Order: sequence, then structure tokens, then C-alpha cells
Amino acid sequence: MQTDQRISLAMAELMRRQGYAATGIKQVIEAAGVPNGSLYHHFPGGKSEIAGVALRTMGAAYAELVGGLLADGDDLPAAIEQAFASAATDIESIGWVNMCPVGTIAGEVAEAEPALREVVADIFTSWIDEGVELVVRRGYRADDARELVTALVAALEGAFVMARTLRSGEPLRGAGRAMAAYASTLPVGVRR
Amino acid sequence: MQTDQRISLAMAELMRRQGYAATGIKQVIEAAGVPNGSLYHHFPGGKSEIAGVALRTMGAAYAELVGGLLADGDDLPAAIEQAFASAATDIESIGWVNMCPVGTIAGEVAEAEPALREVVADIFTSWIDEGVELVVRRGYRADDARELVTALVAALEGAFVMARTLRSGEPLRGAGRAMAAYASTLPVGVRR
Repeated sequence: MQTDQRISLAMAELMRRQGYAATGIKQVIEAAGVPNGSLYHHFPGGKSEIAGVALRTMGAAYAELVGGLLADGDDLPAAIEQAFASAATDIESIGWVNMCPVGTIAGEVAEAEPALREVVADIFTSWIDEGVELVVRRGYRADDARELVTALVAALEGAFVMARTLRSGEPLRGAGRAMAAYASTLPVGVRR
Repeated sequence: MQTDQRISLAMAELMRRQGYAATGIKQVIEAAGVPNGSLYHHFPGGKSEIAGVALRTMGAAYAELVGGLLADGDDLPAAIEQAFASAATDIESIGWVNMCPVGTIAGEVAEAEPALREVVADIFTSWIDEGVELVVRRGYRADDARELVTALVAALEGAFVMARTLRSGEPLRGAGRAMAAYASTLPVGVRR
């Protein structure tokens, strides 16, 4: 792995466990196992720049994972319920670790770190746009699709925080059933 | 206001803006305007204890606010949509400030601060229990009520983070419409 990737991956791991503010640049250097000077050589913007790169990488990986789950099967409500249930099983089995730090970092930096807020806004926007495309391809109306995907992201982010806090997969499973019930109320047009 | 309340309120305000890790004990003392020694006199457990008290206070206030909105009117789906829309209007008008830090602190401390995680777990549990009581009183089945309220809390928390990040009330309004549509699918028994 290249030096910049090692630094970005170390930052991502530290942010998953302890968030942005609690993560010090010395910890990143140590966890990445890189020489002191190389960090600022690769990331002149320091911690905020590394965090931005790490969040974009994880955001893209997570979109691919969730998008893959939502693209499965013929029936969108069933795919939604299944995607949330699978998130519940995953987080139970890995011991309540934060699987994707985008949402929690968003909450932490929205006021305190304007540059990072904009990075996370881009990530949320691309999640929504990609999700809308998936849902429209299934025959739903574009405005319904946008509303559904926005609510899905909100419910997934909120349910992850509740699951980690309550040490229970139920908030994820329950949010998935709720979102599936809501999706079932939306009209579907021509389906392939 | 008493010294311990001033300290707890200062902590709450700082956590709203910058989260738990970024808030230093010196900042709390300065913002509260109290002498140095009085902080550890009132809170021997230091920052974590103050944060716990501040979160419990804000959690209770927020439960009362949201509970009041959900208790309004005859129709639960309409009350849900209205409560989310009112949250959207509020956060737009106050400039995307974090209105209730419970959810964001939960995401930040779930792994790093076990004592605070337990405080937040208690708060989430009491929100759910109080919400279930409200919904059951409207004639819904207890298991449906629990699933609905859990999903409501998840969607509200997630939509707040998205709204603050995207600088838009739409995630809150959309999540409200989604949750209202879901609530409309649940059977309602005898209503007064």
C-alpha cells in the first residue's frame, strides 16, 4: 500500500473508533507506521485534509455495499428490509463497531469544521443521487425515489447510532421494516 | 442559577457546537464563569460526569418537546409529519445549530467512553418508553408502537445530521412524510 493510502486508512480506523476531534495527528502517524515528515508531504492540509480523503474513500465503499444490497431481488421493500437486517447482523457480529464513520463525523463537525462539513455534504449528496438512480430504474417516480432514499439514509444513520448505543440490532431491523412498509405505499410503474 | 447548573449548561452548549472530545474542561469553567475549584467540587468525576448530567437534562427537555408535538391532534400520522416539519423550520431559523446533542454525542462516544454510552442508552430507552406510551394511548398495538417509535427516533436523529450537513430542512421534512406514510399502514384500534 502506498504511503498516502496507509495514512488515510489509519485516519479512517481512528475516526471509526473515537471520532475526529479525539484523533491526534501523532496517533495517525503511529498507526500508519510512516515517518513524521511524510504525512505533511502527502497532506499539506494536515488532519482535516486526511479526514476528507478518508471519508470520501469510506463513503464510496459504503455506497457500493448498500447500493449492491438495494439492487438485489425483484421487490424493493423486501430488499430494503433485508439490507437493514444484514447491517444489524454485521454490527452484532463485529461487536458494535462503527461500520462507517461518515454519519458520526458529520454530526461532530457540522458546525466546528466547515471544510469537512462540505466533504460530508458531497458524500451524502452522492449517496442520494446514486440511490435515486437505483430506485428509478426499478420503476418508481423520481420525486418519490428522492424522498425514499433521503429517508433511508437518515433512518440508517440514526439506527446505527442507536444500535451502537443500545448494543442491540433491533433499531436497525425495526427501521428496515418501517422503511419497507413506507416503500410499499409508493406507486411503481413499468417494471422490467 | 446554581453553580452546578451553570456548569452543566455550559457543557451542554459546548457539546452542541463542537461535540464531547473537542470540549476541554477549561473551556467549560470559562463559559460557566465559575471558579476553577468549584467544578471538581460539584463534579468529582470531571468532564464525563458533567457531560452525563448535561445529556440527561437535555434528553428530558427534548423528550418533553417532541412528546408534546406527537400528542397534538387526533391523527398520529399527521402529528408525526407536523413534528418533523416543525423541526425543519426550527433548525432553518436558528442557522443549522445542533438542537439536541444526545444523538451526535452518542455517535462520538459509543466506543470511546463506556460510561457516557450507558447514559445515552438510558436516554434513548426512556425516549422510546415514553413514546410507546403516547402511541399506545392513541389505540395502537404495543409492538407496533415500539417499532414505530424506535424508527421515529432513528429517522429524526439521522435527518438532523443530514439537515445540518446539507444545510437543508428537506431531509427532516422528507423523513417526516416517510414516517407518516409508515404510521398510516399500522392498524389502529379503539380511539377515544
